[in-house]
Amino acid sequence: MLGGQTALLETRPVVDAWASAVCKKEGEGPLGDLFDMIHTDDTMGEDNWEKAETRLFMDAVKRCIEKAGVTSGDVRMLLGGDLLNQLVASNFAGRELGIPFIGLFGACSTMAESLAVGAMILESGSADRLLCAASSHFCTAERQFRFPLEMGTQRPPSAQWTVTGAGAVMVSNRRTVLRPRPVITHVTIGKPIDLGVTDATNMGAAMAPAAADTLCRHLMDTSRTPTDYDVIATGDLGAVGSALFEELMREKGMPLLAHRHVDCGLMIFSPEQDVHSGGSGCGCSASVLCADLLPKVQKGKIGRLLFMATGALMSPVSANEGESIPSIAHAVVIERPEEV
Amino acid sequence: MLGGQTALLETRPVVDAWASAVCKKEGEGPLGDLFDMIHTDDTMGEDNWEKAETRLFMDAVKRCIEKAGVTSGDVRMLLGGDLLNQLVASNFAGRELGIPFIGLFGACSTMAESLAVGAMILESGSADRLLCAASSHFCTAERQFRFPLEMGTQRPPSAQWTVTGAGAVMVSNRRTVLRPRPVITHVTIGKPIDLGVTDATNMGAAMAPAAADTLCRHLMDTSRTPTDYDVIATGDLGAVGSALFEELMREKGMPLLAHRHVDCGLMIFSPEQDVHSGGSGCGCSASVLCADLLPKVQKGKIGRLLFMATGALMSPVSANEGESIPSIAHAVVIERPEEV
Repeated sequence: MLGGQTALLETRPVVDAWASAVCKKEGEGPLGDLFDMIHTDDTMGEDNWEKAETRLFMDAVKRCIEKAGVTSGDVRMLLGGDLLNQLVASNFAGRELGIPFIGLFGACSTMAESLAVGAMILESGSADRLLCAASSHFCTAERQFRFPLEMGTQRPPSAQWTVTGAGAVMVSNRRTVLRPRPVITHVTIGKPIDLGVTDATNMGAAMAPAAADTLCRHLMDTSRTPTDYDVIATGDLGAVGSALFEELMREKGMPLLAHRHVDCGLMIFSPEQDVHSGGSGCGCSASVLCADLLPKVQKGKIGRLLFMATGALMSPVSANEGESIPSIAHAVVIERPEEV
Repeated sequence: MLGGQTALLETRPVVDAWASAVCKKEGEGPLGDLFDMIHTDDTMGEDNWEKAETRLFMDAVKRCIEKAGVTSGDVRMLLGGDLLNQLVASNFAGRELGIPFIGLFGACSTMAESLAVGAMILESGSADRLLCAASSHFCTAERQFRFPLEMGTQRPPSAQWTVTGAGAVMVSNRRTVLRPRPVITHVTIGKPIDLGVTDATNMGAAMAPAAADTLCRHLMDTSRTPTDYDVIATGDLGAVGSALFEELMREKGMPLLAHRHVDCGLMIFSPEQDVHSGGSGCGCSASVLCADLLPKVQKGKIGRLLFMATGALMSPVSANEGESIPSIAHAVVIERPEEV
């Protein structure tokens, strides 16, 4: 226990394994070589988009179980979510996998939410091994949140592109000398913050204040400064949101150096890929965490990572009713293996 | 820690306070005198149904905070959910309340999910006081999951009536001699179970196998039998689902005596209220828990309660795609105050 919104995890839960699964466009991006699986067809061979996303979720989870060298029967709980109404992608994956399931919704913050809740459950001793996972799919998200794909709607420069991808992380209390692994040391649970943004094609602006709020609370709770982190990774503020976030942190007197702050939404696609402000979706920060960030922590290239995923809690129904978009950010501190 | 799907909570988190808020129809039911707040107008004075549900959620949470004798600033986390897409009722309540928020989706199982996760977080020492809450509203749910209200669609006898209600429970690690309170001793996390039911107007049939599965796992994990519980409360199987659940338990060789098994969906409305198979919705088990079950545990009338909320993880999109309805049940054991 610590104070405020942050919990210090004394047992330092171990990040045993991680895996990512994405589709063609993500595979063509700057991180293309780092994903565990790259589908070439965005239907993943299924007959609808929702099933395609479930398949992606399962791919990441199954590969993660494999990489951890265990079976699904060894996993005590699966904490997961996605962007879809009633979490169909993850619920349906849970049905296939037969693992006790805790459904979470935090929009694009879900990967951090699942890691934060999962780490606290491990800290309680209520489970010895669990899986945290999240997914998104461009085709399921666009039609649910915005317009039918067939319309070919024009997108403003502030719009983000929903990543077709999933990430899964196995966390446990097994500390082994032979296979040192990254550890989770702190989690910070964010508050829903709403400064009145109503534009669903500018989620970065809606989410930046939530990211700044959670980061400030985290630094206050831990008596740290941004320089205590090798990398502060947000996901997914995109170009517009990242600039606003950095400006807000400067205003609060805690400037971030550009090379310390990375954004998963800016890492997964290159500017040439025509995604405007960057990537988004639960699967964006989930797959970037598993493909790029965790391997760097494992190798000691990042000594201490603050992984802070952000979510725009927007709903087409409430938007039609004139509501603005509350946003949330949860943060998890992951440190390199103690023995490295 | 215990085994299988069940966690034993050694710190025995304390159920400090609870509150419920419902609307007119629920107030006219058998538990009418027991709710903390009864609205007479199902708009709650708001200009759309979603805002009305948010209001209900806030009413329960605020009354619970009041009854616990604390302020919202004393609450470290709010774990909540509802049936709405993107959890708008609880997310918007979270925005107003300014409490760090963990969004959960377990359909009608959400109250048990939030208590289970909340209890494990308390056990970890990551928080000293948190709120678990859930809500539903007949008018938001009907139009989202079934038909526009204006159609006046006929309902088959197996259909359940979504409760307009909310419940909030404050759980903490503060054990006081002066104010003994119920304690949470075990939680069991369920698996998504799907036996192929596709009828969204027969959720009881879809959920009964999940309830039986979780109860059997719980009894196996704890080496207990149904007779170890004064009351096993499901929520919300309704009449159809309750009969199926009891039959499944008999088949599994663990018969439940009728007076030991109660169903929140059957408790909240009387047969004269024309609700067919009974009540449903996250707010059903949440409000019945807070209005009826917890006060009985507090008074020692129920020595040991198994509160097992069930959820049909149905989605209109997946239903249109021909998918059946996976269901889930989570269980929480609540015991009377140790000093009573």
